[in-house]
Amino acid sequence: MTHRYRLHYAPDNASVIIRLALEEMRLPHETVLVDRGTQAHKGAAYLALNPHGRIPVLETPDGAIFETGAILLWLADRHRTDACSLMPAPDHPDRGDALKWLFFLSNTLHAEMRMLFYPQNYTGPDRAHQAALRAGLHLSLAGHLRLLDEAAGAGHPWLNGENPSILDLYLVACLRWIALYPVDMPGWWDSDSAPHLRALCARIEARPAALACAQAEGLGLHPFTAPDYPTPPEGSAL
Amino acid sequence: MTHRYRLHYAPDNASVIIRLALEEMRLPHETVLVDRGTQAHKGAAYLALNPHGRIPVLETPDGAIFETGAILLWLADRHRTDACSLMPAPDHPDRGDALKWLFFLSNTLHAEMRMLFYPQNYTGPDRAHQAALRAGLHLSLAGHLRLLDEAAGAGHPWLNGENPSILDLYLVACLRWIALYPVDMPGWWDSDSAPHLRALCARIEARPAALACAQAEGLGLHPFTAPDYPTPPEGSAL
Repeated sequence: MTHRYRLHYAPDNASVIIRLALEEMRLPHETVLVDRGTQAHKGAAYLALNPHGRIPVLETPDGAIFETGAILLWLADRHRTDACSLMPAPDHPDRGDALKWLFFLSNTLHAEMRMLFYPQNYTGPDRAHQAALRAGLHLSLAGHLRLLDEAAGAGHPWLNGENPSILDLYLVACLRWIALYPVDMPGWWDSDSAPHLRALCARIEARPAALACAQAEGLGLHPFTAPDYPTPPEGSAL
Repeated sequence: MTHRYRLHYAPDNASVIIRLALEEMRLPHETVLVDRGTQAHKGAAYLALNPHGRIPVLETPDGAIFETGAILLWLADRHRTDACSLMPAPDHPDRGDALKWLFFLSNTLHAEMRMLFYPQNYTGPDRAHQAALRAGLHLSLAGHLRLLDEAAGAGHPWLNGENPSILDLYLVACLRWIALYPVDMPGWWDSDSAPHLRALCARIEARPAALACAQAEGLGLHPFTAPDYPTPPEGSAL
């Protein structure tokens, strides 16, 4: 590798969250397109990096790391500086508070979004079963987003605080996808109901890291406050 | 609090994973029963600790932490000693490897088990929709367990390694519930297909921490190698 880090990515996939973090931390890195058009993430070379076949993978001097939350936390802990800290240190009194929301984003918000976007992977091909699952997930996700908006307005320093955190980066990307997908029912959630999350989107979108990611992956001028479908220079989102 | 830590638990709920970790680390703690019989986890007092209403919560001098994975990681990082380390330190070369499996357990294995056990929370009351979701999850979970068995046989020091880790504790508890639930279809997964996971269950079960948990929550003599439904001294699992 030319650089210390190599991010395996597809445009507007979960890998963009890692790209945001790398850009925020100004960590040199190279990217490798995972071609979803040829199902490259289900091929032997990619499965050797991540047997689950999910995007992203970050190759590091310590080996390949998968899982968005794991990569974010690992990067934040390895590269904390006085100028940039995306997560409280392990001995910081806010650590537990930040970790609990990180795991919630990973195992509930993100996990349920995956089911909403790919219901056929859980219910099989029957459209009625898929629709029932999606309807249940709409309710469930709306509840999670309400709690996240409350938390984002509660003055947590690591969730919609003064400086960005890995929670913020993870969350704005999820909000982007919630606005755009599923493609046959965009806008199912009313973001006007979540003013603190909207403010978070605006704040992250104004940062150079977001601009760099939007340019690299074709996410448009307002990737978080007014998302539109990506027009990436290479590869495809789906 | 009499002790530094107070675990809000229900017998044989995810809280038992935290109890296992507290016992392994010999950390003094007190427990508070969350009475599922009266839906105490959906009451105002509990929701003030965890707005998602999920068990467990660990009260600490740094505040209340929720999310099983978050609590495990926080405890392991705060109380690492030469004699007991349940997770590689942040600067350890194995850290990324351990984190990626921790997040996978949390956001995929555990998340899909929750859906399998409570499908009505996702599909609504229609039995046919629930059955379709469960059938899909059986396939999906069997695939995850196959990969976990491979990983448990691959010589990772923090997954079925010489000394227990938070991954091991999390995983054996999940395997226990997979053997017992849903109550109307126990034994849907054949644990004989996963010899490395079986070996892990036997190793953890032989430890004093497992015995202490089994006694405290009525999990029987073989909570991981031959699970049976709990007969707890207080409270109820469901």
